[in-house]
Amino acid sequence: MRTIEVCLSPQLLQQYPLTDKLIVVADILRATSCIVTGLANGVTKIKVASEIDKVIALGKQGYVTAGERGGIKVPAFDIGNSPLEYLSSTLRGRKIAISTTNGSQAIIKARKAKQVIIGSFLNLNATAQHVLQNKHNLIILCAGWKGTVSLEDTLFAGALIDECAEEMIKQGDATTLAHQLYIANHNNLYNLLKQSAHAERLTGFGMEKDLAFCITLNQYDVIPTLEGEDIVATQS
Amino acid sequence: MRTIEVCLSPQLLQQYPLTDKLIVVADILRATSCIVTGLANGVTKIKVASEIDKVIALGKQGYVTAGERGGIKVPAFDIGNSPLEYLSSTLRGRKIAISTTNGSQAIIKARKAKQVIIGSFLNLNATAQHVLQNKHNLIILCAGWKGTVSLEDTLFAGALIDECAEEMIKQGDATTLAHQLYIANHNNLYNLLKQSAHAERLTGFGMEKDLAFCITLNQYDVIPTLEGEDIVATQS
Repeated sequence: MRTIEVCLSPQLLQQYPLTDKLIVVADILRATSCIVTGLANGVTKIKVASEIDKVIALGKQGYVTAGERGGIKVPAFDIGNSPLEYLSSTLRGRKIAISTTNGSQAIIKARKAKQVIIGSFLNLNATAQHVLQNKHNLIILCAGWKGTVSLEDTLFAGALIDECAEEMIKQGDATTLAHQLYIANHNNLYNLLKQSAHAERLTGFGMEKDLAFCITLNQYDVIPTLEGEDIVATQS
Repeated sequence: MRTIEVCLSPQLLQQYPLTDKLIVVADILRATSCIVTGLANGVTKIKVASEIDKVIALGKQGYVTAGERGGIKVPAFDIGNSPLEYLSSTLRGRKIAISTTNGSQAIIKARKAKQVIIGSFLNLNATAQHVLQNKHNLIILCAGWKGTVSLEDTLFAGALIDECAEEMIKQGDATTLAHQLYIANHNNLYNLLKQSAHAERLTGFGMEKDLAFCITLNQYDVIPTLEGEDIVATQS
């Protein structure tokens, strides 16, 4: 059987051999929820950049510019980092360039893997189906917060493990930890996530609406897939 | 109120400001369980070294040499890393030099803090009393396994949080995660820890006896305290 592992922070990723691995990147609040929502709603591709300047340069080439620093929209960008912004019909058929505090950094670090896809509660079931049909061993990479561990990404990892556990071997203690957290809280995701440090940080920036949206299960069946520097939609 | 935080791996410690902090280091399987047991049983001091050669040099100065690499006793050392070895009456009144894969590295990284003490299930209650009487904010530093997260250290962090939570403010998602893990498993520590990756690694090296000993609660009231390079006993 194939293996399933969790990496709780991009700063721990160097401990994990990436060759021949499938990586699911999760930054539930909010970058990967945004990416899933955007591609499900007709955005043609999303280019991930670590630097704000690169996003601005892409803006001059026709990209919609998107992202935040410390949870707050970068003033020079067109849109911030709320998945609700990605529902706008004006984005249909457009390309987006995005840079965020944690999620885009995690995606960039994951590039050495065989395949990188983008996970969220919004496409949980589709992600699980993709993982189960894939031939590679899996690492779920939690974006966390500036290198530390985050509750919402760990909880998503636990949810994805739960969907795959019967057909894959759980490996490592972070995997057990994430699965245990999900099992203990799966009926109460919203209340647990309201306690998360990032939900507190977002209070006042429309956190409640974003949080409620980001933990909605299985709204989309899109699998955002990294191809070079671009993330494009494939269906599960 | 003072704050309580968990750092799940020494590789994430640079994210935590250490000035004016009290750090409790935990390497439940098995370095900190060994240190607590040794000092409770009359060892006069324990010197922590990152390198095997330094331990051997200290051996020539009269220290008992102790420790492991990858769970296995270093052949040149007098004893390995089982807390049961630290019960021997021959160690009473002796000094020990120790180097281990994870625990001693975590202790060395913690040195920048205001005060460093050594925690384990064996001195859990005494550790909690010390924390509650201390005036500094707390970081519980989990030693983990070669930089990754470990179940047993996270579980200990959750147990210590549980003892202190009413009088301190929990800060950060790793803290919530550890506390949740403990709450969900506090009646079933042994069974959970048998699933840990490190317990599996120790199978065949007397793991069952060591594991059963290391999760015994409140056997000792000693507080091993770092003074320079030495760990010495203080009572709670």
